Amino acid sequence: MNSEDIRGFFASKEQLDMADYLTLDYYLECVGDIETALAHFCSEQSTAQWKRVDQDEDFRPRYAAKVISLTVEGELAALSYPVQHFESGPVHACRVTIAHPHCNFGTKLPNLLSAVCGEGVFFTPGIPVVKLLDIGFPDSYLKAFDGPKFGIDGIRDLLQAYNRPIFFGVVKPNIGLTPAQFAEIAYQSWLGGLDIAKDDEMLADVDWSTLIERSRVLGEARVRAERETGEPKIYLANITDEVDRLLEQHDIAVSNGANALLVNAFPIGLSAVRMLARHTKVPLIGHFPFIAAFSRMEKYGVHSRVMTKLQRLAGLDSIIMPGFGSRMMTPEEEVKANIAECLQDFGHLKRSLPVPGGSDSALTLETVYRKVGSVDFGFVPGRGVFGHPMGPKAGATSIRQAWEAIEQGIELERYAVGRAELQVMVDGANGKK
Amino acid sequence: MNSEDIRGFFASKEQLDMADYLTLDYYLECVGDIETALAHFCSEQSTAQWKRVDQDEDFRPRYAAKVISLTVEGELAALSYPVQHFESGPVHACRVTIAHPHCNFGTKLPNLLSAVCGEGVFFTPGIPVVKLLDIGFPDSYLKAFDGPKFGIDGIRDLLQAYNRPIFFGVVKPNIGLTPAQFAEIAYQSWLGGLDIAKDDEMLADVDWSTLIERSRVLGEARVRAERETGEPKIYLANITDEVDRLLEQHDIAVSNGANALLVNAFPIGLSAVRMLARHTKVPLIGHFPFIAAFSRMEKYGVHSRVMTKLQRLAGLDSIIMPGFGSRMMTPEEEVKANIAECLQDFGHLKRSLPVPGGSDSALTLETVYRKVGSVDFGFVPGRGVFGHPMGPKAGATSIRQAWEAIEQGIELERYAVGRAELQVMVDGANGKK
Repeated sequence: MNSEDIRGFFASKEQLDMADYLTLDYYLECVGDIETALAHFCSEQSTAQWKRVDQDEDFRPRYAAKVISLTVEGELAALSYPVQHFESGPVHACRVTIAHPHCNFGTKLPNLLSAVCGEGVFFTPGIPVVKLLDIGFPDSYLKAFDGPKFGIDGIRDLLQAYNRPIFFGVVKPNIGLTPAQFAEIAYQSWLGGLDIAKDDEMLADVDWSTLIERSRVLGEARVRAERETGEPKIYLANITDEVDRLLEQHDIAVSNGANALLVNAFPIGLSAVRMLARHTKVPLIGHFPFIAAFSRMEKYGVHSRVMTKLQRLAGLDSIIMPGFGSRMMTPEEEVKANIAECLQDFGHLKRSLPVPGGSDSALTLETVYRKVGSVDFGFVPGRGVFGHPMGPKAGATSIRQAWEAIEQGIELERYAVGRAELQVMVDGANGKK
Repeated sequence: MNSEDIRGFFASKEQLDMADYLTLDYYLECVGDIETALAHFCSEQSTAQWKRVDQDEDFRPRYAAKVISLTVEGELAALSYPVQHFESGPVHACRVTIAHPHCNFGTKLPNLLSAVCGEGVFFTPGIPVVKLLDIGFPDSYLKAFDGPKFGIDGIRDLLQAYNRPIFFGVVKPNIGLTPAQFAEIAYQSWLGGLDIAKDDEMLADVDWSTLIERSRVLGEARVRAERETGEPKIYLANITDEVDRLLEQHDIAVSNGANALLVNAFPIGLSAVRMLARHTKVPLIGHFPFIAAFSRMEKYGVHSRVMTKLQRLAGLDSIIMPGFGSRMMTPEEEVKANIAECLQDFGHLKRSLPVPGGSDSALTLETVYRKVGSVDFGFVPGRGVFGHPMGPKAGATSIRQAWEAIEQGIELERYAVGRAELQVMVDGANGKK
């Protein structure tokens, strides 16, 4: 491209009607001339050839993606990751904001993904290393999306649970239990104090535990637990399946007594989530398989914040995500960014309940609560409840006791005295088990 | 885990009925004790807790993933990529094969993805760096999949084109043309010798070029081109859209005269591809947006070969993929592996037509042909046809001339003499333009 060509891919925000554009923040490593690489970056993700041969026309003013902000962070000795590429020259780390005209693809999630993480973005000459950091949406674009149908407030109303976290538990063993065995364990955990007993993300409709049978016996067990405790409870059924079975699986599970549904958001696809969110009669909760495959590298791929934002946009009422602590291999600021994406203002869209998870128990509740900084989160132990030495009921009780200690401002070890369920956990941590 | 616990996650192939298992090849970087890390790797992706508290049971024999092969490649000074993690100790690069019991999830693509690239795989204590390299399927598992409905042979029969590559062209400008302008350009390219004129992966159903109108005028233009040339032609319409609109978009496009359909496979989701493949009346062709985001790092994420295999399993008759040369930032052996995934035996599944692409023209055809090593591929220029200085008809002709030169064993520069369309391309490469 010559310098005239390049200029067509740069603009200032003031020159554009920003209601017509998404804003895309990227980290880029540019090889060779920076402006040339950035013009290609815009061209490749929008109008790769902006006129017909021998026609006097220019599609760039309306259809081109345009650089509206550039910060050169510095020159690097080499690319951060070895990638075969064509260009040669100095390597610069850059932060850019691109204004991408959404009329190029419309308010459709698969087409949006193709634009912001597609061939153009990842195969631009001179930009072998790229990470999509964030997407900004004008309200005019957001209007086309319904977002969460229930959101945090809807889940709280369903459970009549306010001013505290929502207590989930992943029934374990996650794979191998018959529906009847599964129901008995879930029942115990509800009696002990869980709000939501859930299927593992790996357990869906399989011949040794069909969704129809599991949701039937779990629905019955839930009603018994509600009667016994006088509290509303949720059985969260995993209906992850082929996309053309999702609506039917929803109907089966809900009519049998599942009163919230789990899907593995990225494996079924964000568009399938959106379809299901329109149809659902109960809260829809997403789990995070696959996302780490493209979000873990610091300087390559897609930031997990983008996926959290898109999951909320697609309509998930609650989003399970990798939580705090080095166990989950996710930097603390990234977990906090994902939680913020659930809770912060986002056009007219309801808030999603963030559920930062990973090897939790009564012992980790206070840390998670302090780091989240509010009660608006879900807490999701697995073995911390279902591997409790005294059984799942005691496991669930230990979680509620840990919350009581926090509420009352009493140190966990002191609060455990005389409370066997919590004491066992504290002793275990101190090696007294 | 103690050594007894660990042993439950190791087996030899001979001890297992391999028809019950998928085989998963991973590259792993293990921190600390290797066997402990690998047992966790199997446990986390299958039965994370394999017995209930106080029950004498063991779900591992039937439900556990198991290491059936381990090669320690060597000790590393550090992880290949910095990842926050919990464990400490020596770091070893390992290649493992895991036997994963498919009864845990069944013959469903979203559940398969959740198992092989999910939380368990990417969040195993002691394994911060992981790349899924390949999946092996027993025939008993493959039987549940229809695979490509047409395959290479079906596409050849449709075009009556044998013993040569299939000549695609991406109509450019890709964004901004009215349907009528688009149809005229495509028409010219068919006259010049293209088999298939296609929508760009970024152009789908938008208000300034609706699918209904574009497929109508392109369908008419195709029939005119067929009449004029006496050869069957294909208009490849991009129906990438929200999943609940895909079948309707198929019906609209096909009834209007599109005789093959393009989808962005990963953005719509592999399960949506499978749904569409069952429904389709015409060949279904996939494009590759998003895949680079998790496949480009040498030692992290998911190898693109896995995605090619799953796209064929889902039923794509042809798979567009990043092609040869450093322009597309993909090592040559990786491109070849992806082509092989389309062509090699794969249970009862038909072969998919591989289309390795990226900035191609008459000048690159021979290289691609030699590297593929057979005529069973699609060749897909964009600007190489539609940016040709003499226009799209001449652009398409230059491609066919380049193929004639190859067929006749004549050097391109010599064959160009007296053939203006090819001569212009050769001159351009030599800086005579």
